[in-house]
Amino acid sequence: MHTTIDFYFDFMSPFAYLAHHRLAATAAEYACEINYKPIDLAQAKLAVGNTGPSNREMPIKLKYLVKDLKRWAEMYGLPFGFIGNVNTAKLNKGVFYAQKQGRVGDYVNEAYRLTWGESGAPDDVELLRKLALSFDWDPIAFLDYLDSGEAANLYQATIDEAISRGVFGVPTMTIDDEMWWGNDRLFMLEAYLAERFSSAKATA
Amino acid sequence: MHTTIDFYFDFMSPFAYLAHHRLAATAAEYACEINYKPIDLAQAKLAVGNTGPSNREMPIKLKYLVKDLKRWAEMYGLPFGFIGNVNTAKLNKGVFYAQKQGRVGDYVNEAYRLTWGESGAPDDVELLRKLALSFDWDPIAFLDYLDSGEAANLYQATIDEAISRGVFGVPTMTIDDEMWWGNDRLFMLEAYLAERFSSAKATA
Repeated sequence: MHTTIDFYFDFMSPFAYLAHHRLAATAAEYACEINYKPIDLAQAKLAVGNTGPSNREMPIKLKYLVKDLKRWAEMYGLPFGFIGNVNTAKLNKGVFYAQKQGRVGDYVNEAYRLTWGESGAPDDVELLRKLALSFDWDPIAFLDYLDSGEAANLYQATIDEAISRGVFGVPTMTIDDEMWWGNDRLFMLEAYLAERFSSAKATA
Repeated sequence: MHTTIDFYFDFMSPFAYLAHHRLAATAAEYACEINYKPIDLAQAKLAVGNTGPSNREMPIKLKYLVKDLKRWAEMYGLPFGFIGNVNTAKLNKGVFYAQKQGRVGDYVNEAYRLTWGESGAPDDVELLRKLALSFDWDPIAFLDYLDSGEAANLYQATIDEAISRGVFGVPTMTIDDEMWWGNDRLFMLEAYLAERFSSAKATA
């Protein structure tokens, strides 16, 4: 039996950056598949009536959050730098291109490294070109895809599906009917997998 | 050297309920003193520009949060029930009365048990009377104090101090110049204390 973890994220979220790193290790440990589901965080928040300001608009809170993010990044041994802007739609849509090429996990890794790792701007055409080239993809084909109707449709369908499942923030992870929101809940997901796999062994 | 942990909370917050339970055990382990600082969460949020809706106004998010709270309560072995309303100013002010009587930790415990433990309404006069009686306090003196200028002044001073320190949510814990927000960050506070006490031993 192959376990699938749905991973709802937006490259806008630094907590999703942290979570991706840890989740990838957990998935490898338990031979789970991660189903990467990029969404527009703003749409998901609005769908549940979350009309409040973003953390970026609250400097005092943001100051604490930056400290918190740096604590996690240090704990995980990850580089961390704030991204130039939060226009992540193209980078998000690139996930679908990477899926077609069978490189989705590597794409998410590298896209995160260039943005939250190295402070790149997610909508920078040079960054997107560089990303494509790192997988030996034709940069023009990649950039064209990001503007395509196919990418737009897949993106919106993923967002709609997330909203229909009650996803209101990122990162959100689901296994079976269980859902966890936040990098800081991964320990619960890990306990769930540990329990499930130990039960599976006991009844094998 | 006696370590003090400042604990900013509002009886409104179920996550502060969870945190209080765990923090009390940690404080006992390291012989730390907890400095209980009740604040009006709504004021602290507004002070940083957090004008968004409360979680209670977002049913889809709330549904997940209730599940999350129940997961934590089960992990901590705590009873959990939603409180009748969020009018916690009186219960918060009672902390100052309890401090004068030298019973603050017990007061916070019992006030939490009656509300988030047993779904009591925090502004219910009968609940407040029962609370006073459980410490052999004169219920009338206690109730009068909650409406007093002294309690109002101490409460506002505590809120103002919290805001001046950059507290924007509860529970918030500080030790020295370090600050952590959330029950889910207590593991970081615990690591900080473990590190600090092991260094103290090493240099003793």
